Amino acid sequence: MNSRETALWFGERDNFLIITHRRPDGDTLGCAAGLAQGLLEAGKAAFILFNPEATARYMPYVQKHWAPVEFIPSYIIAVDIATPDLFPENGKPYESAVSLAIDHHPSNSGYASLSCLDMTKSSCGEIIYEILMALSGRIGTETASSLYVAVSTDTGCFAFSNTNSNTLRVAAELVDAGAPIGEINKDLFRKKAKSRILLEAMITAGMEFYFDGAVAISIITRAMMNKTGAGENEMDDVASIPTSIEEVIVGITIRELTGPSDCKVSVRTTPLVNANDLASKFGGGGHAMAAGFSLNVSAEEMKRKLLDTLGEIFPLKIGC
Amino acid sequence: MNSRETALWFGERDNFLIITHRRPDGDTLGCAAGLAQGLLEAGKAAFILFNPEATARYMPYVQKHWAPVEFIPSYIIAVDIATPDLFPENGKPYESAVSLAIDHHPSNSGYASLSCLDMTKSSCGEIIYEILMALSGRIGTETASSLYVAVSTDTGCFAFSNTNSNTLRVAAELVDAGAPIGEINKDLFRKKAKSRILLEAMITAGMEFYFDGAVAISIITRAMMNKTGAGENEMDDVASIPTSIEEVIVGITIRELTGPSDCKVSVRTTPLVNANDLASKFGGGGHAMAAGFSLNVSAEEMKRKLLDTLGEIFPLKIGC
Repeated sequence: MNSRETALWFGERDNFLIITHRRPDGDTLGCAAGLAQGLLEAGKAAFILFNPEATARYMPYVQKHWAPVEFIPSYIIAVDIATPDLFPENGKPYESAVSLAIDHHPSNSGYASLSCLDMTKSSCGEIIYEILMALSGRIGTETASSLYVAVSTDTGCFAFSNTNSNTLRVAAELVDAGAPIGEINKDLFRKKAKSRILLEAMITAGMEFYFDGAVAISIITRAMMNKTGAGENEMDDVASIPTSIEEVIVGITIRELTGPSDCKVSVRTTPLVNANDLASKFGGGGHAMAAGFSLNVSAEEMKRKLLDTLGEIFPLKIGC
Repeated sequence: MNSRETALWFGERDNFLIITHRRPDGDTLGCAAGLAQGLLEAGKAAFILFNPEATARYMPYVQKHWAPVEFIPSYIIAVDIATPDLFPENGKPYESAVSLAIDHHPSNSGYASLSCLDMTKSSCGEIIYEILMALSGRIGTETASSLYVAVSTDTGCFAFSNTNSNTLRVAAELVDAGAPIGEINKDLFRKKAKSRILLEAMITAGMEFYFDGAVAISIITRAMMNKTGAGENEMDDVASIPTSIEEVIVGITIRELTGPSDCKVSVRTTPLVNANDLASKFGGGGHAMAAGFSLNVSAEEMKRKLLDTLGEIFPLKIGC
């Protein structure tokens, strides 16, 4: 369905439960909050399924929309979720019961009964904006703020290469609808906790370069997190640090999670290398220049596996 | 004059020399390049007065427009220049001969015969865009690229608090006119030289906090520049590093210039403190949240002077 058809679909229905993805980012949470608020303003009942991994940064947008225990949804909506295995633990019961998926990931598996997919959009937030405008003709300040969070975070405040004129135009319309972007940008992009700044310095200092500097790999250990005091709130977009260095074509962050050999890998690339292809070799996925996966191995073993695989892409001698 | 009147003024004239300001940033250079190219496309002769301080980062936009020695201008245009003392050394002869100033600084002194001023604009680039659209109804890819450089650098890629919906809408139109924002954003905002990243770490490590953490001061010494190998190209927006830390209300960078006691001070603030007021106490100026000045004293003495003045604003005990 396109945005207009999706708006009609919403218009004829009621009682929606919105699901966000695991390790939720600003796009999935901003979309959920914007959609819930927009549907509310259109006279509908709409809630977000509690996401246990939502960070404090996004809490002001989502927490007022958490579904109360007594809410019985008629329709399940997934926002910004490519595959059902990205549902949070408490969303598992809904995996095969999704009425509608709204998404912009090329890797969307078509798991929902109905889908509103638009891969040309930089963020899922732009699709939600179109749907709500087609539904109601206007959006309120709160909806605009949440959608601005979605649009701006998924494009790195309009600096990532996925940004296009639609992104910027929607952002302009969200500002005109009242989104306080001065405050939001400050919170999301311009202000950093001291712990984050210390962590960034450690990540930069520990970075290793391979394949004549084309590949940069950073391991973020639990010890680094403990030493700097950085928590989940301070981890947003650390994955983009390696590729921020000139000459780096593939930037990889390997992050130690809670288990002793549980690794989350984030891959960022320039157009020369497809990040989704690389991640999919390890069972992950994402976009052409930003993808990821998790594996139950140690960080050092993960690095070795990645270097082996990268050796097939870069037929150059391993430098350091 | 407004943009429309300014376009008519240009339409009736020819042979323009465009002047940019000292320590030129992306706005003044992007404006000059965009205006020169746009006037060229409208069949006019227009050149930029060579700016000896233009950095390599912006050279691809401006250098093709440098005025040849034999060019005799009929009209002198100043872009993004608040006062004539900001003219580069080779622009001094034109100080009292400026036909038209196009600017967005509230501190514009009205030095030109005619002025096209719009303080509501985030960047001077937005004004140039309006003028060129009024003049020609369209702009080419090169003009769009230069104006995108102007608009995006003056708003920190749309993250600074001066960004408004007009900024974003003009950016969207520049993208539609062909500005390759993926490449430009990568060059200007997402890619950093290793030397810059090392310098940032040093700036962060050496930061001193005063007035219960409300003021952060960083001294950028020539030794730091030498050690990291960072040059002028790597200095863009280092002034915003101190205010990127939460709780910091006034962020100051004191940079040692070539002389033994020659300091360039950049002041960045949140809305709680007026940066222009603070800078003007030392003979400088700028905007409400971003201002600067230079003084011929040592960095340490500069810091002491600033702390004395800040003591009047923050009647708190000096912490560290």
